[in-house]
Amino acid sequence: MTESVTIDYQRVLEEIALEVTPSFGKGKVADYIPALAEVCAESFGMAVRTVTGEEFSIGMSDEPFSIQSISKVFTLMLALARTGDEVWARVGREPSGNRFNSLVQLEHEKGVPRNPFINAGALAVLDLLMANTRVPGEVILNYARFLSGNPGITFDPVVAASEIEHADINRALAYFMRGHGIITGDVPALLEVYCRQCALSMTCRDLVRAFMPLAQGGYSDLAGESILTEGQAKRINALMLTCGHYDGSGEFAYRVGLPGKSGVGGGIMAIAPGKASIAVWSPGLDASGNSQLGQTALERLSKRMEWSIFGA
Amino acid sequence: MTESVTIDYQRVLEEIALEVTPSFGKGKVADYIPALAEVCAESFGMAVRTVTGEEFSIGMSDEPFSIQSISKVFTLMLALARTGDEVWARVGREPSGNRFNSLVQLEHEKGVPRNPFINAGALAVLDLLMANTRVPGEVILNYARFLSGNPGITFDPVVAASEIEHADINRALAYFMRGHGIITGDVPALLEVYCRQCALSMTCRDLVRAFMPLAQGGYSDLAGESILTEGQAKRINALMLTCGHYDGSGEFAYRVGLPGKSGVGGGIMAIAPGKASIAVWSPGLDASGNSQLGQTALERLSKRMEWSIFGA
Amino acid sequence: MTESVTIDYQRVLEEIALEVTPSFGKGKVADYIPALAEVCAESFGMAVRTVTGEEFSIGMSDEPFSIQSISKVFTLMLALARTGDEVWARVGREPSGNRFNSLVQLEHEKGVPRNPFINAGALAVLDLLMANTRVPGEVILNYARFLSGNPGITFDPVVAASEIEHADINRALAYFMRGHGIITGDVPALLEVYCRQCALSMTCRDLVRAFMPLAQGGYSDLAGESILTEGQAKRINALMLTCGHYDGSGEFAYRVGLPGKSGVGGGIMAIAPGKASIAVWSPGLDASGNSQLGQTALERLSKRMEWSIFGA
Amino acid sequence: MTESVTIDYQRVLEEIALEVTPSFGKGKVADYIPALAEVCAESFGMAVRTVTGEEFSIGMSDEPFSIQSISKVFTLMLALARTGDEVWARVGREPSGNRFNSLVQLEHEKGVPRNPFINAGALAVLDLLMANTRVPGEVILNYARFLSGNPGITFDPVVAASEIEHADINRALAYFMRGHGIITGDVPALLEVYCRQCALSMTCRDLVRAFMPLAQGGYSDLAGESILTEGQAKRINALMLTCGHYDGSGEFAYRVGLPGKSGVGGGIMAIAPGKASIAVWSPGLDASGNSQLGQTALERLSKRMEWSIFGA
Repeated sequence: MTESVTIDYQRVLEEIALEVTPSFGKGKVADYIPALAEVCAESFGMAVRTVTGEEFSIGMSDEPFSIQSISKVFTLMLALARTGDEVWARVGREPSGNRFNSLVQLEHEKGVPRNPFINAGALAVLDLLMANTRVPGEVILNYARFLSGNPGITFDPVVAASEIEHADINRALAYFMRGHGIITGDVPALLEVYCRQCALSMTCRDLVRAFMPLAQGGYSDLAGESILTEGQAKRINALMLTCGHYDGSGEFAYRVGLPGKSGVGGGIMAIAPGKASIAVWSPGLDASGNSQLGQTALERLSKRMEWSIFGA
Repeated sequence: MTESVTIDYQRVLEEIALEVTPSFGKGKVADYIPALAEVCAESFGMAVRTVTGEEFSIGMSDEPFSIQSISKVFTLMLALARTGDEVWARVGREPSGNRFNSLVQLEHEKGVPRNPFINAGALAVLDLLMANTRVPGEVILNYARFLSGNPGITFDPVVAASEIEHADINRALAYFMRGHGIITGDVPALLEVYCRQCALSMTCRDLVRAFMPLAQGGYSDLAGESILTEGQAKRINALMLTCGHYDGSGEFAYRVGLPGKSGVGGGIMAIAPGKASIAVWSPGLDASGNSQLGQTALERLSKRMEWSIFGA
Repeated sequence: MTESVTIDYQRVLEEIALEVTPSFGKGKVADYIPALAEVCAESFGMAVRTVTGEEFSIGMSDEPFSIQSISKVFTLMLALARTGDEVWARVGREPSGNRFNSLVQLEHEKGVPRNPFINAGALAVLDLLMANTRVPGEVILNYARFLSGNPGITFDPVVAASEIEHADINRALAYFMRGHGIITGDVPALLEVYCRQCALSMTCRDLVRAFMPLAQGGYSDLAGESILTEGQAKRINALMLTCGHYDGSGEFAYRVGLPGKSGVGGGIMAIAPGKASIAVWSPGLDASGNSQLGQTALERLSKRMEWSIFGA
Repeated sequence: MTESVTIDYQRVLEEIALEVTPSFGKGKVADYIPALAEVCAESFGMAVRTVTGEEFSIGMSDEPFSIQSISKVFTLMLALARTGDEVWARVGREPSGNRFNSLVQLEHEKGVPRNPFINAGALAVLDLLMANTRVPGEVILNYARFLSGNPGITFDPVVAASEIEHADINRALAYFMRGHGIITGDVPALLEVYCRQCALSMTCRDLVRAFMPLAQGGYSDLAGESILTEGQAKRINALMLTCGHYDGSGEFAYRVGLPGKSGVGGGIMAIAPGKASIAVWSPGLDASGNSQLGQTALERLSKRMEWSIFGA
C-alpha cells in the first residue's frame, strides 16, 4: 500500500529489459505497409508513470513510433466525453472473437460493430465524433497533443499516405456500415482522418502521460482537470480488458492482467488502475498482431509490481 | 483500505435489495427444461463473504437453486489443480463472440473450444478431468461439498433428468469435439456427469464460501489450505472477466467491473480480488441468459463498495 | 420432336396468363430504391422466341423494365468472349448458399466471389471486362443493343442515380475484393458502370432476342454470327442453373427445370437449350428476391412444353 | 435423334478409357477409414444403360465398390415415394456452399439441412423414412436390391464397422438436428442404418440399372413399373444437378452438364434424362471429394454423346 515510496521502479525496468532482450526478433514486424516494415525489429522502449507523478523509463522511450490502433482509445475517450452514451447506439461492448478487420460479424449484426476497438468500431466512433467537431480533420491529433502535453506530436506523413493506399478493407468496412446506417458521414473524409490517426508518431513517454486519466478516474494531472467521469474511465478500462488486443484479448488478460491497448506498430499501453500508466514498444508481433516482447515485458512488470487486477 | 472495519455491509445489502426489488419480473425465467421454468420469478438472495471471514446476506440466501453454468468454474479449478496447463491443449482462452452453445466457431477452429466457459469448453475440460479422476461420476459434487464445507450439497435429480433429456445440442458439441480428437472419453458418460453438475443445488451462502479461493490467491480459509496457486486463481479470474457471461461478458465487465460467472438458473457469483466473494440469485434472465436483477444488484454493490477492478 | 411446327405457342401463353393473373400482388415489389418501388405491382408480360425464329408474347411484353441482375449475364457473356478462361481466375463457379450481397463467404475465401451471379462476382467480372475494353463506360449498354438488335435500348437515369446513391454495400464488396487483389481498377468508376447496367431498361421481347445465343450454342440469329463458342454457351447455362436465382436457385431448378437469371426488377429470362429463349416480367418478388408470378408462369410453360432439362 | 441406333457406345467407352487412364493416381483415395484407404487407386470401371435397355461397360464394371454418398439418392427416392412432400418439411432444396459435413449452416438455419445430399440432409431424410417403414434396418439395402434387380447386393461389414467407429461428426449432426426437432427418432439406430447404407457394395452395372427410373420419368424397366412420378424423377435430377457433388456441384454442372451424385468411394452415377443412366468408378478424389478420373470420363462421354442438358 506504500509501494510507490519504496519500490525502485527504475531498477525493475532495467531488470525487465535485461530479461526480455534475449528474445529480440522472435515476432514479426508488420509489413502490410512498407513504412512500417522498415522499422528496426530490435527497437525496445518502456515507460511507467505513477499516479504520484513520477516517471520512469528504459530503452528507446523517447523514440516516436507509429501508435496505430492505440489511437482508437483517444477516439473513444473523446467521443464519450463529447457525446456520452450516444456512442453505444453505434457500437457494442462485446469481444468479437474474430480478427480486427473481419466483416463476418458485421454482417450478422446488421452493421453494428461489436466494440470500439476493432477497426469497424473505431471507424463508427470516429464518424460520430467527426459529426460533433468543428475541425474534424485534426480532432485526434489535437487531443493527443493536449493529453500528453506535447504540442510537437505529429503524424508520420509517409505512414499516413501508405495507410490510405492500403485502406481498401477499411473502406469496405466503412461503406458496409454506411449501407446499414451506422456511419452517416462521408467515407473518404473518414478514412483520411482514420489513416492519419493511425499514423500518429508518439513516444512511450507521450503515451504514459496521455493515458494517465484512465489510471486516475478520469483526471489528467498534466491538464489539471478531469477529462472523463470516473465511470467513463472505469468503463474504458473494462473495454480494453475484454477487447483491447484483437483476438488475443483473452490471452493478454490471462498473462498480464491489466487493461491495455495494442497497435501493429508494436506499441502497447496498459493501465494499472489507481496506480500507474504504462507504455512499451517493440515491433515484433505475435500471430494475433500484438507486440510479442511488449506483452512479455508487461507480464513481468505486472507480476513484479503485483499490479494484476485479478489477484491480491 | 480499512473499509472492512467500518463499512456496514449488512446495511448496504439491505439498501440494494430495496432498490432492485421493484424490478422483479423484468427478465425471463429459463424454460428450456420444465424443472427450471417452475422456479418463482421473484426469488432473490445475495451473500458476501470477505477475506476477513465475515459473511453477510439478504433475502433467500439459504435457499438452494440450480447453479447451472456456475459449475463450470469448479470444473476448471479442479482440472487446473489436477492437470495444470494440460487444460490449455484442449481449450482456448479467448472470448467467443457467440452464444454459449454455438457450433460455428467450433467448426472453424477444428473442434477446439474458445474458452472453458462456453458449453463446448466445459465439456472438454470435464472430459480431461474425468480421465484424471478415480471416481469421475462424483468428481464435481465432491469438490463443491469440499470447497463450500457443506457435505449436504446434492444435485437436483429432477433437474438432472430433465437436462439429460434436453441435452441433444450438448451431445452434438461433444461428438463434434470427439470427432476432432479434443474429447477422448465416452460421450454418454460425459453428458451424464455434465448434466448432474449443472443440476447442483447450492445456496448463495454455499457459493461465496466455495469460491473464496479465487478472492484470496488460491487459499481456501474453510479448507485451511491453498487449493490453487496464486497464478491459477488470478488467471481463472481473468477468464471469468473476459468469458464468464456468454455473449454478455463485455457488458458485465462494463457495468459491474468484477470477474464472475453466471448460470441460467439465475445465479451469478463474482469475485472482488483480495476483498470478497459474492453470490446473487434472481431467476429472471436478460437476452444473453444472465440474471437481470442479479447484474443490477452486483453493479450497485460494486459501485457502493468501490470494488470495480477497473478504477480506484 | 416436331413440336415447334404444331404447338400453338400463342394459345399456351394466353392460358398461362389467365392462370397466373389471379395471383397478382402476392409478392413484394423491390423498394430499396424509390424508382423501383413505384412500378405497378400488377404489371405482367411474357415472351418466347424459338430457335426457328418465331416470337410469341403476351401482356406487357413491349414495356421496358429495369433488368437489374439479368444484366450480369451480359457481363459474363462478354467477358468470356473477350478474355476467355481468365474470368475464372477472378470468380468461382459454385452456388453460394448465401444472399446475393453477402460478405461472409467473400471473407472466408479471401475475396474470391463464389460465382459470377452474386453481386461480388458480377463486380469482379465487370472489373476484368472494363480493363479489356476501350470504352468501358458503355460496354454493357452497347452489347445489349447489339444482341437484341435494338439500338433504342437505354438505361433509366433515375434508377441509375438511385442505385448509385444506395450502393454502399456493393461499394463495400468492391473495396473488399480490391483489398484482396481480385479487383484492380478504380472502384467509383466500376460502381458507376455497374449501377448503370443494372438500370438498363429492356422489354421481354428485347430479352428473348438478346439471349438467343444461349439457346442455340452461342449463335445469334439476329447478329448472324456466333458470339460465344458452344462450350461457353453451355457453361453459362450450367452456371445460371446452379447460381442464377440467388439463394432460390435450387428452388428454381426444382420447379422450372431451366437455366435462367432473375432480377429484382421482377424480370426473369430462361433458356430451353436447343429450343427457345423466354422472358417474363412481374414485379412482385418472393423472399429470395425472385419474381413470384414469373416463376409460376415459367414453371407452367416448362411443364406444358416439356422443356425441363431434367426429364424426358 | 436416332443416335441410339447408330452410335457404337462400346467403342466410345473404350476410347474414353484409353484417354483417361494416363491420369491414374492423380487424385487422393479416401483415407478417413482404413477399409476405404486400402482400395487400389488405379481401379477404373464404367457402365452405361440406355432407355432402350442396352448396356455397355468397360474396365472393372462388375467389381463391387463402396457406394457411400450415392446411397443418399436411394434414400431420397424411397422417402419421396413413401411420404411425398413431407420430405420438404425436414430438408431444403438449396445448394449449401459448404463442405458435406458442415455444421455452420445447420446452426444458422435452426437445424434444417440445406438439401438431401449433404450428410445432415441425408440423415434427416433417413430418419423420416425409418419412421415410415416396417423394417427400418434393411430399408435401403432392400431397395437397392429391388431397383438393381440384384438380390446379391450386400453391405461391406468391415466398411460399415469402420464407418460407425468414425461417425462422431455425423453423430454431432444428428444430435444437433434432434435438438432442433428435425430428427425425431433414436440417433444410434439412425447412425447404424446410415453407416450401413454408405457401406453398400455395388458395381457400376448395378448402379446403372438401379437409377434407370431417373432417366425415364420414374419408370423402372427392370421392375416393370413406375417407382416415382415423372415430377419426382425430374426434381431429383434437379437436386442432383445443384447439390449432388458437395462443394463441387457447380463445377460438375459446368464440366459434365448432367445430374449426378458422387461418393467418396470414388463412384459417380449420372443421368442423361430421356437417354441413359451412367456409372463410373475410380477411387482417386479431387479436393471436393469427387472422383477425379470419374469426372473427366463423364465430361468426355457427355461431350462425345452431346448429352449435356445445357446445350443442343
